[in-house]
Amino acid sequence: MHGYTPDKEQYLQRLRRVEGQVRGLQKMIDEDKYCIDILTQVSAVTKALQSVALGLLEDHLGHCVAQATAEGGDAGAAKVHEASEAIARLLRT
Amino acid sequence: MHGYTPDKEQYLQRLRRVEGQVRGLQKMIDEDKYCIDILTQVSAVTKALQSVALGLLEDHLGHCVAQATAEGGDAGAAKVHEASEAIARLLRT
Amino acid sequence: MHGYTPDKEQYLQRLRRVEGQVRGLQKMIDEDKYCIDILTQVSAVTKALQSVALGLLEDHLGHCVAQATAEGGDAGAAKVHEASEAIARLLRT
Amino acid sequence: MHGYTPDKEQYLQRLRRVEGQVRGLQKMIDEDKYCIDILTQVSAVTKALQSVALGLLEDHLGHCVAQATAEGGDAGAAKVHEASEAIARLLRT
Repeated sequence: MHGYTPDKEQYLQRLRRVEGQVRGLQKMIDEDKYCIDILTQVSAVTKALQSVALGLLEDHLGHCVAQATAEGGDAGAAKVHEASEAIARLLRT
Repeated sequence: MHGYTPDKEQYLQRLRRVEGQVRGLQKMIDEDKYCIDILTQVSAVTKALQSVALGLLEDHLGHCVAQATAEGGDAGAAKVHEASEAIARLLRT
Repeated sequence: MHGYTPDKEQYLQRLRRVEGQVRGLQKMIDEDKYCIDILTQVSAVTKALQSVALGLLEDHLGHCVAQATAEGGDAGAAKVHEASEAIARLLRT
Repeated sequence: MHGYTPDKEQYLQRLRRVEGQVRGLQKMIDEDKYCIDILTQVSAVTKALQSVALGLLEDHLGHCVAQATAEGGDAGAAKVHEASEAIARLLRT
């Protein structure tokens, strides 16, 4: 049971749409579409993925991290640090 | 014929790998994997997509944009501006 | 009293360094330095700023957000949502 | 003489404003402002810096890179590659 579990189906749906967009990118390259149009589409896919990540992160902060910090002690700080490192990785991609 | 045309097969291969990674994300959510591990994987997919975009952009700058600027006049400046806007979109996702 | 209060002096020091870097950028432009070298330096300043933001965010999650979620109820979810929106803004710049 | 030289004064002005914003951040921390408000301001400063970078990049592509690619040969490809690496650094910050 995770923070995202109640919204599992919604996340799967969004990722299936991202999968379709990535297949669309392959089609664009296969059909020799204009480079800039492909780049615009890559930006859209990246945005969709980042938006999924932000949703998962909010669920995680409100669930797993909230639980750990409520228990107090080092476990809370460790979870906060782990989440911060995940945010740093998202920022650097 | 675009800047990326000679490397078409390589781009298709990379995007098929990205497609597989997105299916992997769905599997992780379906199997209730830990949120942070999913986020790490989202960062990896985003990085792979950005890397494809950077490759396409370099091909575009060295081919379409170079051709237009070599011809001189407004067409060159317009292509440079169009590419800059694509870069801005990549930065803001 | 905020999450960052105990590290206030450290943040001020880092931001004074960022201020110096921004002055350095002005000097580079004033002295007609090579564009790419200026861009490299802009990337460094942006990285330094993002790193300050990540520090502040971790302090905030471990302090203000942790406190609000520990109290339970809507206040916790509101703080988590507010933090998530701040993360989204950082991602989109 | 670089691509940005004709707009030098405009870039200096924008960077002086960024410098003021960074001093504003120090003031916010010094006066114990709310973390999220500081993060919002960090996002604004980062956006301003990225916008300066995009301007410099467009000037560079339309001037130095255009000149090198017009001359043909390896010099053009090298300038395009150098610019692409600068874009990659901007994306990863």
